[in-house]
Amino acid sequence: MALVPPIEYEAAAAAVRAVYDDIRATRKTDFVNHFWKVLANDPAMLARTWANVKEVMAPGALDPLVKELIYVAVSVTNNCEYCIHSHAAAAYSKGMTPQMFGELMAVTALANATNRLANGYRIDVDERFASPLAP
Amino acid sequence: MALVPPIEYEAAAAAVRAVYDDIRATRKTDFVNHFWKVLANDPAMLARTWANVKEVMAPGALDPLVKELIYVAVSVTNNCEYCIHSHAAAAYSKGMTPQMFGELMAVTALANATNRLANGYRIDVDERFASPLAP
Amino acid sequence: MALVPPIEYEAAAAAVRAVYDDIRATRKTDFVNHFWKVLANDPAMLARTWANVKEVMAPGALDPLVKELIYVAVSVTNNCEYCIHSHAAAAYSKGMTPQMFGELMAVTALANATNRLANGYRIDVDERFASPLAP
Amino acid sequence: MALVPPIEYEAAAAAVRAVYDDIRATRKTDFVNHFWKVLANDPAMLARTWANVKEVMAPGALDPLVKELIYVAVSVTNNCEYCIHSHAAAAYSKGMTPQMFGELMAVTALANATNRLANGYRIDVDERFASPLAP
Amino acid sequence: MALVPPIEYEAAAAAVRAVYDDIRATRKTDFVNHFWKVLANDPAMLARTWANVKEVMAPGALDPLVKELIYVAVSVTNNCEYCIHSHAAAAYSKGMTPQMFGELMAVTALANATNRLANGYRIDVDERFASPLAP
Amino acid sequence: MALVPPIEYEAAAAAVRAVYDDIRATRKTDFVNHFWKVLANDPAMLARTWANVKEVMAPGALDPLVKELIYVAVSVTNNCEYCIHSHAAAAYSKGMTPQMFGELMAVTALANATNRLANGYRIDVDERFASPLAP
Repeated sequence: MALVPPIEYEAAAAAVRAVYDDIRATRKTDFVNHFWKVLANDPAMLARTWANVKEVMAPGALDPLVKELIYVAVSVTNNCEYCIHSHAAAAYSKGMTPQMFGELMAVTALANATNRLANGYRIDVDERFASPLAP
Repeated sequence: MALVPPIEYEAAAAAVRAVYDDIRATRKTDFVNHFWKVLANDPAMLARTWANVKEVMAPGALDPLVKELIYVAVSVTNNCEYCIHSHAAAAYSKGMTPQMFGELMAVTALANATNRLANGYRIDVDERFASPLAP
Repeated sequence: MALVPPIEYEAAAAAVRAVYDDIRATRKTDFVNHFWKVLANDPAMLARTWANVKEVMAPGALDPLVKELIYVAVSVTNNCEYCIHSHAAAAYSKGMTPQMFGELMAVTALANATNRLANGYRIDVDERFASPLAP
Repeated sequence: MALVPPIEYEAAAAAVRAVYDDIRATRKTDFVNHFWKVLANDPAMLARTWANVKEVMAPGALDPLVKELIYVAVSVTNNCEYCIHSHAAAAYSKGMTPQMFGELMAVTALANATNRLANGYRIDVDERFASPLAP
Repeated sequence: MALVPPIEYEAAAAAVRAVYDDIRATRKTDFVNHFWKVLANDPAMLARTWANVKEVMAPGALDPLVKELIYVAVSVTNNCEYCIHSHAAAAYSKGMTPQMFGELMAVTALANATNRLANGYRIDVDERFASPLAP
Repeated sequence: MALVPPIEYEAAAAAVRAVYDDIRATRKTDFVNHFWKVLANDPAMLARTWANVKEVMAPGALDPLVKELIYVAVSVTNNCEYCIHSHAAAAYSKGMTPQMFGELMAVTALANATNRLANGYRIDVDERFASPLAP
């Protein structure tokens, strides 16, 4: 049960409405989900969080579906029920198939397992892995 | 510091050598990283874990690079130093660019943040998100 | 659904009643919440856990409201539904305003994000941060 | 070992320098810590993350020291070595005493314990806790 | 609410039925729980996961009850509601008493607390602990 | 690097010495590990934490080795380097064999994997699992 009530468009202040409007325009849908309506209780948090999501989830070097898959993997690892549902739906709408979802779950489960093997055995990092991205 | 020592090929039993050989053949490299050499202390675990990794990380509905990105996102969320280094290296070898790595970190960080907003406010799942994958 | 049933005062053994009585006296309320009634299935755990809570959450160098805010931040990070509800209520009763709750959520979300950026990039600790509390 | 190298002021692009300058001006110090110098590899992430930190950690309904304590509690729960060191240092510079640090650790440890008791026993949320912040 | 529906025996493909049959034979019961029926949406994952569980949870150097206790401890730490219920039931059927469950919860809670004290204070590992299992 | 220095016996106050003495007497060894020497910076925390450990880890319905195995499983799941080393050493001294350690790692890894499958698919708890411990 939500700790604070969702704020509907009609009851929202202008600053909140402006964010809802931008969510609708960016996503090309009238639907604004509960996440935003609850954050709207703190208009600065709503605006900041939406700005972050809009910027980070936009097409870039990674395409939007891959970003949604990553989002789901993190949400599953942390057990965020809301985020699993909302980002699985977003991934589905961007082309995720049931086969892809199954593989996403398989990789997520496997990584959670091998993370514990590596941490549990305290395995030393191989020298050649140390800085793959260093210039 | 590893709790048990890595087992080198020369000192390995036949069952362990067979796994090392398959890792080398599958990955088309002579390099076997510490992870496997430490798991080799428990040959059944080595064989089982490698079978899982080989099957799950193979090309499928998701391509191998996307699978590596998901692996890194989970490893970062769980703070597995070894896995971050090894799978960042694997992703890099499969085509990950620095821009892609930056976006991967950005999505991972964002998901970790919004997971806590959704969990902290105890936000109710929107009805339309409930079962996107149900038939 | 709780794995074991709550134990009501009337049905409780003397050792359990003594803890319930001390909870009521310390908190100046007749209300004993489910947490304690469930722990009462293991009287030694009930007594030990209450002793810890009573000692740790008492006024000290940090005031009780700050302690409740910290408690909520940890509970949100771990996704403990019960603890989020019970400690948000406790914080509210000690003076937490909706503005403070919003800022608490914002800091908690931000820390969860930047924790992953620092861990994901494996950022080296600056020398000057190493031992701020060392004598 | 950092996956990407820190970017020093002299080598930084104008957009990165602007963020470093704002960090220095906001914090009234010449010191820019590694966290920002590593994020600078992705200038958009640097700018966005700094904007978030600057806004969220500013004085508000919660004072800056309380915000730092919350930050440390989350970082300890997630085991972010970098963040524990950097935010413990920040808290110390804002007035945290060793006694306060000890109590912060005590509350963080206690919450991590009772989170598992509540989750492990699957304790039902008391009705009166359900919506303390609802209007 | 499950993201995908459970697949009943009657509606299952031959490969899925073979796994269900082996679960029943191994466990000496007709009951197949939801976990397997949901994984059956991805037959390869079903077969792989069951093979892992069958091998890992079999009697070995640790007896099956001890393995179930460890499973519950991890599931409580990660807050997996399904796994807490299913493995508490499995442990109970293998001889776990309420007293043992209470002690299991107590150790799990204590470890979660002291993990944060050790990580929070960044305590150096004692030399004599470094490699207890090294030859 | 520890945030605060360890406190040696010779430099310790009487209340701290009393705890060290009890640790030595209970464990039948002169060795006091860093964990306690660091907590000694907050004598109340030292006394409380030791009282908890002494009570929870004592022989009971579960034997001390099983308790140490559970401790290690939790510490691996949370990635507490110190606790993995110290409790693996404790388990080893109480009879844990390398085979047992391997199985402990295997169960811990498996549980971390299936926890994510159950949470990710949002699998409904089977009715018969609901309350195995209820009277």
